[in-house]
Amino acid sequence: MVKNPFSHFYVVLVEPKNSGNIGAVARAMMNFDMEHLYLVNPCELDNVCYARAMHATTILDNARSFSCFEDAVKDLDYLAATSSIESKTDKRHLRNPMLLEDFSEKIFDVKGKIGLVFGREDYGLFNEEIAACDIMVRIPTSDTYLSLNLSHAVTIVLYSLYLRKASIPPRRRAIGSLEKQKLFEFFAQLLDDIEYQPHKKEHTKIMFKRMMGRAMPSKWEYHTLMGVLSKTLGKIKQKERK
Amino acid sequence: MVKNPFSHFYVVLVEPKNSGNIGAVARAMMNFDMEHLYLVNPCELDNVCYARAMHATTILDNARSFSCFEDAVKDLDYLAATSSIESKTDKRHLRNPMLLEDFSEKIFDVKGKIGLVFGREDYGLFNEEIAACDIMVRIPTSDTYLSLNLSHAVTIVLYSLYLRKASIPPRRRAIGSLEKQKLFEFFAQLLDDIEYQPHKKEHTKIMFKRMMGRAMPSKWEYHTLMGVLSKTLGKIKQKERK
Repeated sequence: MVKNPFSHFYVVLVEPKNSGNIGAVARAMMNFDMEHLYLVNPCELDNVCYARAMHATTILDNARSFSCFEDAVKDLDYLAATSSIESKTDKRHLRNPMLLEDFSEKIFDVKGKIGLVFGREDYGLFNEEIAACDIMVRIPTSDTYLSLNLSHAVTIVLYSLYLRKASIPPRRRAIGSLEKQKLFEFFAQLLDDIEYQPHKKEHTKIMFKRMMGRAMPSKWEYHTLMGVLSKTLGKIKQKERK
Repeated sequence: MVKNPFSHFYVVLVEPKNSGNIGAVARAMMNFDMEHLYLVNPCELDNVCYARAMHATTILDNARSFSCFEDAVKDLDYLAATSSIESKTDKRHLRNPMLLEDFSEKIFDVKGKIGLVFGREDYGLFNEEIAACDIMVRIPTSDTYLSLNLSHAVTIVLYSLYLRKASIPPRRRAIGSLEKQKLFEFFAQLLDDIEYQPHKKEHTKIMFKRMMGRAMPSKWEYHTLMGVLSKTLGKIKQKERK
């Protein structure tokens, strides 16, 4: 069995107040193969919490609760604090953040247990908590409204990490160059057979090629299209014979 | 004023049952500069909905409700259906999806009103609704648990689009090559002054350079670091004079 590439990540929620948020975070964690949930002084994990977690109840059952921040993070090797808040000056050293996408690119080089730390729904993280973290990660958001819902912030961070490391199934079986060539030949043949205006032919062939480039047909779509073209060419030939 | 690059996007929720989800979607929309919310046969936009929307009440107030899917999408030019479900075979033509990140890269080439269509919390989109869409977009998730919470799915799609087109503030004022050169000179000087083992010097200088490369110091951090180095060098010189 392949090792889960996210098993060294720990989602740390600091004093979450809304039990529904904790459940929603657990669900998002299961969606993106994250296993470990640490809770600092959380509200009760009530029915609302479990309802929002849907199938991710195991994550809630295995979640560890701590009475203070220091205890939660003491066995973690690298701590990333998250925020959607941009500090106005470079000098606000404490919060000088790295953009999420840069973080996701680099963090897999770090060995050891990595804590992804998320603050309170209302007050975020306190300065001493941020100071205890190795890095501040910023999720880019609109200037109009920076503040993300807690479970949305977690979801975005986990998705960003997942994209970098998960083995996402191949996009589609794209058609090869031989198949492409055959498709374009059939299309060129069609233009000939329908007596398309000669001076427009080249442009139209290129347009077709570009369109197929954007459409990125799968093998199945290719065979279907070839079937249609082939039948069309046959029908034209048949008419000519009559 | 700069035109909002997301003003031609329409978030379409088909028969949302949970009013909290609608509010959470509205909040995510405001976080990522999306303006238009279309609702097909929604539940009541009650207090829970408005509470979850936080500052995004205007989006809820301006949301348009329709009694059926056809009415909601009839003035939209291009429809993208979203799903985290991967069809098992290529032949399931209807659902043959494009990955979200590919979609986000290409969709800004499409002119006109673009509908981002999200299905029911429990049943997703019906086949006839998917068939009416121009493209099926897949959000990659773990095989263990594919199904995303509705507002999480919307948040991921909007974040992915936002990353492509928003003018995200420059990462940080990185230091220039002259500053870097000066920093490395000071560090080399320090190695000399502390009588560092000569055969280790080159390796250690390269290590320092690599470390700074990863740390990507800001201008302010550079000046602070130079201050520390400069004071250290001064202190060593002073001791030697004594």
